[in-house]
Amino acid sequence: MKHLPRSIVRGEGGKIGLFVIDGLGGLPHHERGRTELEEAHLPNLDDLARRSSVGRVQLLPAGLTPGSGPGHLSLFGYDPLELEFGRGLLEALGSDYPLKPGEVAARGNFCTLDASGVIADRRAGRPTTEECRRLVKKLESGVSLRGATLTLLPGKEHRFTAVLGPGGLGARVNDNDPQVEGKTPLAFRGEDAASERTAALANDLFAQARKALAGEKGANGILLRGFSTRPEVEGYAERFRLRAAALAVYPMYRGVARLVGMTVEEAGKDLEAQLRNAKKLLGRYDFVFIHTKPADTAGHSGDFAAKIAALEEIDRHIPALAALGLDALAVTGDHSTPCVHQEHSWHPVPLILHSKRCIPVDGTTFDERGVLRGDLGTIRGPELLPLLLAHAGRLDKFGA
Amino acid sequence: MKHLPRSIVRGEGGKIGLFVIDGLGGLPHHERGRTELEEAHLPNLDDLARRSSVGRVQLLPAGLTPGSGPGHLSLFGYDPLELEFGRGLLEALGSDYPLKPGEVAARGNFCTLDASGVIADRRAGRPTTEECRRLVKKLESGVSLRGATLTLLPGKEHRFTAVLGPGGLGARVNDNDPQVEGKTPLAFRGEDAASERTAALANDLFAQARKALAGEKGANGILLRGFSTRPEVEGYAERFRLRAAALAVYPMYRGVARLVGMTVEEAGKDLEAQLRNAKKLLGRYDFVFIHTKPADTAGHSGDFAAKIAALEEIDRHIPALAALGLDALAVTGDHSTPCVHQEHSWHPVPLILHSKRCIPVDGTTFDERGVLRGDLGTIRGPELLPLLLAHAGRLDKFGA
Repeated sequence: MKHLPRSIVRGEGGKIGLFVIDGLGGLPHHERGRTELEEAHLPNLDDLARRSSVGRVQLLPAGLTPGSGPGHLSLFGYDPLELEFGRGLLEALGSDYPLKPGEVAARGNFCTLDASGVIADRRAGRPTTEECRRLVKKLESGVSLRGATLTLLPGKEHRFTAVLGPGGLGARVNDNDPQVEGKTPLAFRGEDAASERTAALANDLFAQARKALAGEKGANGILLRGFSTRPEVEGYAERFRLRAAALAVYPMYRGVARLVGMTVEEAGKDLEAQLRNAKKLLGRYDFVFIHTKPADTAGHSGDFAAKIAALEEIDRHIPALAALGLDALAVTGDHSTPCVHQEHSWHPVPLILHSKRCIPVDGTTFDERGVLRGDLGTIRGPELLPLLLAHAGRLDKFGA
Repeated sequence: MKHLPRSIVRGEGGKIGLFVIDGLGGLPHHERGRTELEEAHLPNLDDLARRSSVGRVQLLPAGLTPGSGPGHLSLFGYDPLELEFGRGLLEALGSDYPLKPGEVAARGNFCTLDASGVIADRRAGRPTTEECRRLVKKLESGVSLRGATLTLLPGKEHRFTAVLGPGGLGARVNDNDPQVEGKTPLAFRGEDAASERTAALANDLFAQARKALAGEKGANGILLRGFSTRPEVEGYAERFRLRAAALAVYPMYRGVARLVGMTVEEAGKDLEAQLRNAKKLLGRYDFVFIHTKPADTAGHSGDFAAKIAALEEIDRHIPALAALGLDALAVTGDHSTPCVHQEHSWHPVPLILHSKRCIPVDGTTFDERGVLRGDLGTIRGPELLPLLLAHAGRLDKFGA
């Protein structure tokens, strides 16, 4: 990171916590005029805000809505626009598969091909998720690639992830999905030598899959897209001199944490378990990332009451979070998921930064408008980690 | 500076003042909850804030704590991360020695070597500062380098600065200080041809110093580190078309001002004298930099009452500052030095920008939280100078 000279990173100092409330930020309700955070009763978060530096985090350049990967990378101190983050990689991470350098992952769909090989249904009639697992097993046992490994990870309905290995493979390969029905799948081609190897394997996989699935009525072909490799990322130990642990219930977030070199520890099933486990781990780590999902899920559903309930449930765990005794603690989100939008949005996300070196401001509350009074203003995502390092006493002065 | 096209710098217009209160910003007292600036009675600064644009200056990227050199370069309109600013250079500047291009400065320690040349004490038993001056004189008269000049500047206790000249020398030379006792000093080596010349001179200096100091009980050897040259800096006249004067009581700040091409003028012994001298100089200059130190010193000591007293003393001189009749005036700091931290910190520093084109906001006061209401928000250090140029009518419109 060009803005954090390595020479000033001390490699010792206080403990840091990053608590990510997925989809935290919202927007005013169209009739009631107040946001989810404003309507929720959050005594513990409001109290923490009153005793902390507060502001907002803008994860990406103005107007850009972050996906989960880029949102987290930004909070983790990286520039998401500088890291290629292919869809296949995201799918693999989301299946808890730690893609290795040189392996290639692609998103797969089961599809229906007619007798002449034309795509009749790009989603094979949307098989059930259970059916998908059966199809994936059938495919695995029916396909054998010469000199290569194939790992298939079942997804939801018609979706799966294909990982090709064991190494030396490139990801500059086209999708074979023509995106419309009534056409034949495209041949795979690679743009460089390593990607040509991948394309040859993918063409072989496609042909063998047709044979293996020949007896199926619906799912008798496969479409692959979003070929991607694992990006080269300088990890937390090297870049920030932090021993970092990740406690996330969902695989996607464990995957992004793994990408930056965090150690994925057993999270347990919910926030209460995550915080209990965090307490046990703190002796061995300098940094702990804790991710909680329900507010995002509620935002996607557009259910105001559900999002408020999710936020209030999180609020009940804030005393346990505070009791970890971290020297520097950030509470924020990886993006907003406003109920009125039902999707991620580009709006900056509220931020609490708590330490002994913060500047509380009277009248702040932990919501989209209450944090505007705070001293932090709107910081960029990658600025958060240097601030946390500073508050934890982990940065030397720059220059004399 | 990439953000200030040279074509729009007019080279004429109003007079500009930059008043730097070293270590200005603070943090809330752990019991009383108010910062030094908030507790101080500052009627003149508060009044100026009420009639000005106010906000904060962030000197370096988020979380980075500036040393005095980088803090000032940032306020002066330069990116401190782009300028190499070696320790030896800082020491030379701090001794009021205007290092010339091609000269090399290094920090020196007198040390104690035992009979076999092993370091017994890296600080030679901490001689007094008076003793240091005697040792420096002895060294100067006992050393003669072939084809090179040696200038020795005494420092405090065991410290001095060595400057090698007259030119053509590089600074990519290792320290000979092994950083621990019980080892012999390292040989100097240069990483390029110019630095090899420096290394050869430094090895010769080390050997001759042993002979010259052979009769000393404690200080019978020298350690050199932080070899540095003067960085290439485009000066104020060229970059901003400003005739700039510096009025600083302490040599370090005169040195940094010299680096950017300001003329160092006689400051006098204190702020009253600086302002009296500034008034006399204004006919000959477009820009005047005035530096005052006591608030920083009090911050380092951790003495809340002393810092408040220093700030209140500065406040008494604000009417004289205002009476200079500058067309654009900035009052700010080169970094925060909070009493609760006793060191420089990374927190942005309060800023007053006064001119006939400013936007006062009701309720602002000159302290960490009072400036948050202001219209300027948090600007980056190198943005200050273009703003001052604009307020002084020294920038043309960009584009038609």
